[in-house]
Amino acid sequence: MDKDNTIFFEQIRPMRDEIDRIDSEILSLLARRQKQVEQVVALKKAHSMPVYHPAREEDLIYRLRSQAKTAGVDPDFLEDLYRVVLRQSRIKQTRKMELKGIRPGASVVIVGGAGQMGGLFARLFSRSGYQVRTLDREDWDRAGEICRDVDLALISVPIEKTPDIVAAIAPLLPADAVMADLTSIKKEPLAAMCRAHKGPVMGLHPLFGPTSGSLDKQIMVTCPGRDETACQWLVEQLGLWGAVIVRASAEEHDQVMEIVQALRHFATFCFGDFLYQRHIRLERTLEFSSPIYRLELGMVGRLFAQDSALYAEIIFATEERRKLLKEYIDSLSRHLEMLEKNDKPGFINQFNQVANWFGPFSEQAMRESTFIINKLIERF
Amino acid sequence: MDKDNTIFFEQIRPMRDEIDRIDSEILSLLARRQKQVEQVVALKKAHSMPVYHPAREEDLIYRLRSQAKTAGVDPDFLEDLYRVVLRQSRIKQTRKMELKGIRPGASVVIVGGAGQMGGLFARLFSRSGYQVRTLDREDWDRAGEICRDVDLALISVPIEKTPDIVAAIAPLLPADAVMADLTSIKKEPLAAMCRAHKGPVMGLHPLFGPTSGSLDKQIMVTCPGRDETACQWLVEQLGLWGAVIVRASAEEHDQVMEIVQALRHFATFCFGDFLYQRHIRLERTLEFSSPIYRLELGMVGRLFAQDSALYAEIIFATEERRKLLKEYIDSLSRHLEMLEKNDKPGFINQFNQVANWFGPFSEQAMRESTFIINKLIERF
Repeated sequence: MDKDNTIFFEQIRPMRDEIDRIDSEILSLLARRQKQVEQVVALKKAHSMPVYHPAREEDLIYRLRSQAKTAGVDPDFLEDLYRVVLRQSRIKQTRKMELKGIRPGASVVIVGGAGQMGGLFARLFSRSGYQVRTLDREDWDRAGEICRDVDLALISVPIEKTPDIVAAIAPLLPADAVMADLTSIKKEPLAAMCRAHKGPVMGLHPLFGPTSGSLDKQIMVTCPGRDETACQWLVEQLGLWGAVIVRASAEEHDQVMEIVQALRHFATFCFGDFLYQRHIRLERTLEFSSPIYRLELGMVGRLFAQDSALYAEIIFATEERRKLLKEYIDSLSRHLEMLEKNDKPGFINQFNQVANWFGPFSEQAMRESTFIINKLIERF
Repeated sequence: MDKDNTIFFEQIRPMRDEIDRIDSEILSLLARRQKQVEQVVALKKAHSMPVYHPAREEDLIYRLRSQAKTAGVDPDFLEDLYRVVLRQSRIKQTRKMELKGIRPGASVVIVGGAGQMGGLFARLFSRSGYQVRTLDREDWDRAGEICRDVDLALISVPIEKTPDIVAAIAPLLPADAVMADLTSIKKEPLAAMCRAHKGPVMGLHPLFGPTSGSLDKQIMVTCPGRDETACQWLVEQLGLWGAVIVRASAEEHDQVMEIVQALRHFATFCFGDFLYQRHIRLERTLEFSSPIYRLELGMVGRLFAQDSALYAEIIFATEERRKLLKEYIDSLSRHLEMLEKNDKPGFINQFNQVANWFGPFSEQAMRESTFIINKLIERF
């Protein structure tokens, strides 16, 4: 080793030692963080709160990014790093959960068990050690026998049939059996269940399709109907299967779904319908398109690859929904004048008001969708 | 909020605060680590040592893995994390892209070079060895000098100013200089350039924002104006920077953009505006949301994170566009009756017609968006 090298190694050693010390400190902080997260999870479980929530993670990332800027650390780098940290806490929280049964041996009847969603739940309950029976149209003459002594009746039939089926099933159930449904609106089905059944009642709305094959990280809305304590095991079971539980009143649920489902799907339907009316050459527009247009057009195309009857049910579910959608059309019509008069300043003013209202969500959306766009660019 | 919730939030707050403190400490350690690495790199450079050494990285990973086991932290997780940390130091060390120039030494004047998009092109041309001059409002009295002997004048100013600026610049340019613009409509600006300048003319439309920081895999529409051969070097340069070139007539470009930009952004604006009018609680709807809703709402939020004047320009660009948008509103109004009459079969019929027209695109969209959804689930 020549002299210059010797000097170099003498100089670099304390720097490397310092890096090693920093790394050890980071490691012990990560260990402390892990313990703290375990405590939070234990507390959440004790209170039957969902263990994992995307919104809280996004808040955390948002805060860390701005702290990173102040500290002179690249915020994208810090975000990448914390995605790894957060994924790790999630894995630790949901591992070994899939199969465990909260009440193995208990009897579950799935009404509409031959349907796709019913089938998914039949498989899950079975695998977790429950006695699963299914009740479909052709089993109706044995319904009394099938429902005898069940601990849970899970109604998985189309919305419009739910009230009648609930009324027919309820008298066959033990008084302490839990009755729950899976429809995408909650006010009326929950009221129907509470009228018909005198025992514990809970409304469920799985925000995912049966093709997902699992409940892992999928959102399940729970709407308490009657005797929430007696329904608790069911909620815990859903959580153990990995579902993110969101608890809401049936009224709040239906209001939120007016936006999340009805308005959104209707707006997408209208957009696709207009493209069809004008016979736009989609392939050519895609050649001119940024990845984000491809993605947006993909969202429209995706809707039309699915079942029209399902979307008709969602959009026409209630009088309130149809009213909301009419108001949506009215709100568009109010922009006609702006277009007529070429009123750019009016548009800018309105745009800025909306932007101001969206607030920090917009920035977050910008970052998230940029991440997605990069994924798309990588892939295509 | 009920009592149980109150207790829960009182208990969880100190735990979350502790996690936040730990995260702040980790961040400041990362900042210290970064400084230390910078010192090491400076020392290595002074001694002409290679800045990056795979063996040292592997040693470090090896040591950290065994420390992790002792600390009760999953070693695979720690390795994942440190791969991110080490990649970041490598990136910081090897940045400075190679940007080959097609005509290094050629002179480029960027009119509106102080703007974001102009600035991006100024940086790219500079790094590739061009002589870059910028011309902004305050340079106007030196315009003749700045434009002297340039090989390319790239006009990067708002659409409505483009014709006047083109007319003012053209007489200052050599007859064989290429004149090109970057506006998002092409018919009128291209005509204006061809009228004012007698040499080579090309319309460009970058289908990406200046924040992308690079042209890599981004789409650039080129619309030939005059003497396409003389403009070829510019097109090749854009290609070398990684841009995907789409060639179209100005007429076709503008028609496609009516859909890809004006209709799409207007529809998104209307959707966001309606959410604002109703003061929808976005955060709460997100808690109820599937990843695809998060993505779709993100697309809306993304629009409002951007410049209102830019979108006003896009939407109000031409009479034809405003006409198209009015027709869009009319087409929505035709659905009012369907909602009024609760006409589910009518909806299903219309839905199926559109689905049929979308055809195989829908299936493809379903596949692609499922890929994206999985990416989102991985990430959140």
